[in-house]
Amino acid sequence: MNLLQKTLAIAIAATGFAVVTNVMADEKSPAEAAIDYRQGAFTMIKHHFGPMGAMVKGEMEFNAAEFAKNADAVAALSKFPANGFIAGSYEGETEAKPEIELNADDFKKKMETFQVEAAALAEVAKGGDIAAIKPQFGKVGESCKACHKEYKKD
Amino acid sequence: MNLLQKTLAIAIAATGFAVVTNVMADEKSPAEAAIDYRQGAFTMIKHHFGPMGAMVKGEMEFNAAEFAKNADAVAALSKFPANGFIAGSYEGETEAKPEIELNADDFKKKMETFQVEAAALAEVAKGGDIAAIKPQFGKVGESCKACHKEYKKD
Repeated sequence: MNLLQKTLAIAIAATGFAVVTNVMADEKSPAEAAIDYRQGAFTMIKHHFGPMGAMVKGEMEFNAAEFAKNADAVAALSKFPANGFIAGSYEGETEAKPEIELNADDFKKKMETFQVEAAALAEVAKGGDIAAIKPQFGKVGESCKACHKEYKKD
Repeated sequence: MNLLQKTLAIAIAATGFAVVTNVMADEKSPAEAAIDYRQGAFTMIKHHFGPMGAMVKGEMEFNAAEFAKNADAVAALSKFPANGFIAGSYEGETEAKPEIELNADDFKKKMETFQVEAAALAEVAKGGDIAAIKPQFGKVGESCKACHKEYKKD
């Protein structure tokens, strides 16, 4: 080896591990990145949905301001998961069924129903009236279930 | 064992595994749930930030509509991570440093700077002028780095 080759060999040995781990951490396929994205969105949505459910069921004391904040968050976040359902992202570490791709129009419609119902809940929640909130919260829950039933693995 | 005990024993044997796995999947501590939440938010933000960065650097062809959509998404999502930085969530599976709790005011200020700069980018992006977009995109990037430098583990 000449000096350049030696220097390169040392540099590669020294940095190789860092490069490999970097590639492993960063280089996700578009499908893997889309799965992470939509799972992130659903994690956030569930985080805001949970306390509302507990308040509606009376497991947690109703707090109108907290409820409205959570309803606003779900309404805003409801627009995001759709971005993560891209072609080829229905295998691997996902509970999403390939039927989403086959029934794209129906899936899109169900996702839009969720957005519409979530926006309506945010609106109703501003009023702070639990009696008015309950049925609309139910509709949001139904819009989740309608999609999960068809398109989410058990 | 009487009949009731026998029935219970069979029922427990049959459902035990399902119950255990369910508990494992669902019962996260508030700190763990908060970590998942903020990591979800950052995953989504990065997903929208990446293509903008590639366009600004000329690695991807500039598409004004796509850029504006991503800028809108980052502006909307910038409001969410703060919800996930709760007391006691700075150990375990997280890159967030405990200094966040010690310097809460500074952390909050840095998070707000990110929100302000992201909102300004969404506004500039509507114009579709890459020359105007570039410096504001830089400011958003700086607001990310300012926080990561102090409060994110390497």
